[in-house]
Amino acid sequence: MEFQVVKRCKSSKARLGEIITDHGRFETPVFMPVGTLGAIKGVSPDEAWDAGVKIILANTYHLYLRPGHELIEKLGGLHRFINWSGPILTDSGGFQTLSLSKLRTISADGVTFQSHLDGSTHFLGPEKVMEIQRALGADIIMTLDECAPLGANHDYVLASVKLTEQWARQCLEQRKDNGQALFGIVQGGIYPELREMSARGLVNMGFDGYSLGGLSLGEDRRTRENVIRSTREFLPEEKPVYLMGVGTPEDIIESVKMGVDMFDCVMPTRNARNGMLFTHKGRLTIKNAVYKEDSSPIEEGCACYTCSNYSRAYLRHLFVSREILAYRLNTIHNLYYYAHLMSEIRQAMREDRLAEFSHDFYKTKEKWRETNV
Amino acid sequence: MEFQVVKRCKSSKARLGEIITDHGRFETPVFMPVGTLGAIKGVSPDEAWDAGVKIILANTYHLYLRPGHELIEKLGGLHRFINWSGPILTDSGGFQTLSLSKLRTISADGVTFQSHLDGSTHFLGPEKVMEIQRALGADIIMTLDECAPLGANHDYVLASVKLTEQWARQCLEQRKDNGQALFGIVQGGIYPELREMSARGLVNMGFDGYSLGGLSLGEDRRTRENVIRSTREFLPEEKPVYLMGVGTPEDIIESVKMGVDMFDCVMPTRNARNGMLFTHKGRLTIKNAVYKEDSSPIEEGCACYTCSNYSRAYLRHLFVSREILAYRLNTIHNLYYYAHLMSEIRQAMREDRLAEFSHDFYKTKEKWRETNV
Repeated sequence: MEFQVVKRCKSSKARLGEIITDHGRFETPVFMPVGTLGAIKGVSPDEAWDAGVKIILANTYHLYLRPGHELIEKLGGLHRFINWSGPILTDSGGFQTLSLSKLRTISADGVTFQSHLDGSTHFLGPEKVMEIQRALGADIIMTLDECAPLGANHDYVLASVKLTEQWARQCLEQRKDNGQALFGIVQGGIYPELREMSARGLVNMGFDGYSLGGLSLGEDRRTRENVIRSTREFLPEEKPVYLMGVGTPEDIIESVKMGVDMFDCVMPTRNARNGMLFTHKGRLTIKNAVYKEDSSPIEEGCACYTCSNYSRAYLRHLFVSREILAYRLNTIHNLYYYAHLMSEIRQAMREDRLAEFSHDFYKTKEKWRETNV
Repeated sequence: MEFQVVKRCKSSKARLGEIITDHGRFETPVFMPVGTLGAIKGVSPDEAWDAGVKIILANTYHLYLRPGHELIEKLGGLHRFINWSGPILTDSGGFQTLSLSKLRTISADGVTFQSHLDGSTHFLGPEKVMEIQRALGADIIMTLDECAPLGANHDYVLASVKLTEQWARQCLEQRKDNGQALFGIVQGGIYPELREMSARGLVNMGFDGYSLGGLSLGEDRRTRENVIRSTREFLPEEKPVYLMGVGTPEDIIESVKMGVDMFDCVMPTRNARNGMLFTHKGRLTIKNAVYKEDSSPIEEGCACYTCSNYSRAYLRHLFVSREILAYRLNTIHNLYYYAHLMSEIRQAMREDRLAEFSHDFYKTKEKWRETNV
């Protein structure tokens, strides 16, 4: 993987960059939709591509449990299995053992956890996580981390940072020369000095990129931004920075200004399936009665497939009727919205007007009330 | 609507035809997938079109209840509302008041029934049914019929035939000169003489086509075929004949040989969502463990989008994981299978080899066991 910064913003830490992988190149800042089980929920790979998606994320934890990494490897790897020829990033599963598993026991060797599917017991250690990710064959892979729960005290988080660093080293040692880029995951909870310790430790080892983990746990926005801002300083300028599991369009714009290059979140896809649609004016709840006879698209001027072909009235009808097509058309729009937002951000940086873009972005939404659109 | 018979089969009553509507032409025999609520469940209109679908069916009963025919009319009619520019056929709702409604009371004026959605009381009479179908704006519409339940005795069915004839006359009187083709629905249960009476009555009135109703109620295959064969003789050669709600590929081939031109059924779409896939060798249950590591497509040589891009192993994984994409990819394949089957039938007729085609069709499946594929 190659990364280069193409341009730096004058008014912030934001940077415009480019990442080249064996499965193609993409520009940064970039948003990666989540394809947990080897499919972005609700859409096909072609559709995601047409909506502007350039790289997708898949979950090691989920694919390990079902259908299993050996099966995917046997069938030619994840790209081929899911029919996506662009870049893929896999996480390490560390976060899911916290968020999904009913029971997890952490030792120096790794995490023992119960599957959320059938309660069976499994073990993920640094070696195993590297083996799984190698079998899946993603372009960008992650070290195993221990994500401390929100509210964990300083001692707990300190131990978690040390363990995460130890596992990162072991992952690095397990690394093969197979073209996969390996990112280290910075932990440290909400404690700036622990974030610094974690970042410095990882940077000393030298990874292809650095992820900020543990910042999608429900902490308040100001806390998260303080952590990102302070931690970012200890990460090298010449490597990409990936903020895991974040977030809203607003979160992304603010994080870009703090020098984050990569994002992933289930928000555009999950919210779409719940009938919540993103527009530049604000969020729209498609089941609302106000859209019953509304012949306009979700957003005027939006070039997505959904807005080009369907009315709010039809989308409301499909959603209320629980037609499968509802989830898909909503997802296409939200994916396009996110991809387009990133493209607008990059274009603004290219034209040295990120601050103005950001200002306009918030202003457009200020007076918006859903019932008025 | 124009219909013309292009060629007649020498070995059977089958005929190759063409129907021209304001929304395009299609060849017969034709299969029409069901888009109950204004969407073929699981796929987009473009996808259905790409799978070879030329005309779709939508349900008057469902669209009347939700979102309402006035709303659809206000938004430019059904074609525009659902983004399908090809021909559409709507049924009259008579069958659904039998199959879906909890309570129905039949009088000479029409049917009073309870909505399956919220229990509210509604009335459908000949005038209302014509008004709804006019508002929806389908290319081919149906008269209101009373579909007698399976097992109804001779007296009941005789009364039902008379009522259906009376309503058909009233529908004909309500008809406007708006380009919509109106089909009369032949009833008569399993009683050949009542079917004859029903057919003669309708033919005397003169419709644009004739539907065979009440033959998807669970009667045995031989009974159904006897009814079709005997009734078909009383229907004019110069008008299309539509067998409502039928059926399997085998049912369709046999019915084509008896001179049926049009078919609809939820089978390809519903079965797809249940993981049952059609192939020329037989039916395949995708969740079966035998497909776990199977890198081949659903059917070798199938040119559908699904078979061109995805393995059985991936489809099984998606289905077992209940991913939305599973229902869609399965549906695309089954729609293609049905459309392609009709195309094969028409091609065989064009080349005077329908009997051979039919023979080969059954022979290919004879020795098939799912675990062997």
